[in-house]
Amino acid sequence: MTRKVRIVVEYDGTDFSGWQRQTGQRTVQETLETAIREMTGETVFVRGAGRTDAGVHADGQVASFSFEATGVGIPPIGLLRGLNSILPPDVALREVHEAAPDFDARFSAQGKIYRYTVLADPVRSPRRARHTWHVRTPVDLAPMTRAARLLVGEHDFAAFRASDCDRRTTRRLVRRLDISRVAIGAGAELTFEIEATAFLKNMVRIVVGTLVDIGRGRIPEDAVARMLSTGDRALGGMTAPAHGLTLLRVIYP
Amino acid sequence: MTRKVRIVVEYDGTDFSGWQRQTGQRTVQETLETAIREMTGETVFVRGAGRTDAGVHADGQVASFSFEATGVGIPPIGLLRGLNSILPPDVALREVHEAAPDFDARFSAQGKIYRYTVLADPVRSPRRARHTWHVRTPVDLAPMTRAARLLVGEHDFAAFRASDCDRRTTRRLVRRLDISRVAIGAGAELTFEIEATAFLKNMVRIVVGTLVDIGRGRIPEDAVARMLSTGDRALGGMTAPAHGLTLLRVIYP
Repeated sequence: MTRKVRIVVEYDGTDFSGWQRQTGQRTVQETLETAIREMTGETVFVRGAGRTDAGVHADGQVASFSFEATGVGIPPIGLLRGLNSILPPDVALREVHEAAPDFDARFSAQGKIYRYTVLADPVRSPRRARHTWHVRTPVDLAPMTRAARLLVGEHDFAAFRASDCDRRTTRRLVRRLDISRVAIGAGAELTFEIEATAFLKNMVRIVVGTLVDIGRGRIPEDAVARMLSTGDRALGGMTAPAHGLTLLRVIYP
Repeated sequence: MTRKVRIVVEYDGTDFSGWQRQTGQRTVQETLETAIREMTGETVFVRGAGRTDAGVHADGQVASFSFEATGVGIPPIGLLRGLNSILPPDVALREVHEAAPDFDARFSAQGKIYRYTVLADPVRSPRRARHTWHVRTPVDLAPMTRAARLLVGEHDFAAFRASDCDRRTTRRLVRRLDISRVAIGAGAELTFEIEATAFLKNMVRIVVGTLVDIGRGRIPEDAVARMLSTGDRALGGMTAPAHGLTLLRVIYP
């Protein structure tokens, strides 16, 4: 009997070449598929809700796969424990659930939440280095917050995607974009949380890079409005590095 | 002219054999002394406020050293930037200050604050693995909190030290011991914060290991009271592993 499974996966993206299987690279998808084959004897295809880039982390990536379960019936908790004992230290399943036959982690998703962390501090912080983008100059939160407000809602995000992004439509609905600030010594840690129905390639990293470049005065505050109206990526800021980004949660009905 | 310097140091302890210089080992003290020699040309002795064990982290370790500054006068900020560019990714200075000639990071300290983090969850968490002790069984916070209260104040902590601890007196003043709990999926993250005038060797790790063993029912709640009255280490719980521990801050007048 074919069984469909939904898993919630946590990983430290530092030593992975991203989610998606690529020949000769260590990827999260391939690591999971290998562990499942080792445990069940079956070659499965693990479909992720989001194909995170190299270096991007996940607290709650979601994936689905089907398997035949011809051998001993394994309950979800047994699958979770068995796979976690096989998987390397930087990746683990947090949850395993039986899913409906038509569940697909990617196409059933109704939204995703990403978090991005920035340390704005003249001095680097070794304990944050793996998961935080370090910016040495001060950033001014007020113009960033004003610019961020313009991004909430349904817009054409053509200016906020990688040049090799192949999606046909570029309209997306951003449900929420919050920025919070905590003082750290002489500097500050900024946390961006962004929720949208779907994202274009590098969209969060271009949003954050553009807002940070506004906050440190490298580009004008009206850059966001102009990007939305013209679709011109060149008006924006840099693409923030991958290691500051975490896929927090995927939303299903 | 001899100058005395006070530095605040942050490190990820994972790949260090602790603070104190040991032949053939990679230690924080030796790494700092090498970087200072490279920058100033002087062989200095870096005195740390606390000699953290192998694997223990620090957000705010404090250390002091003297140097002759015979060359170009370097302001503290120049020393900080220069040393941080030489130091490896897992250690950095967060602050550098000129200090009074009689300042000594260890003997001038009036207290220290440590934090210990525990994940009580049937499932492991890759992104917490470097800095959190993972316990698979549930822990009951109520008896732990009651037992923790007995430790606050001045007591003989003879039962809360490593067998090779060489301090003559074992009375210590614990100013504060707080435990907080945040739900994480099906489990919980527990954070212990403990402030004392001074600590015995492994004292925080034995306190946390004993409280966690009370919380998961391995030893009775009155173990703490009996340890304090008898000085018998054998009545306590395990020594919690090093990697959950962080030296947060050192207190000076």
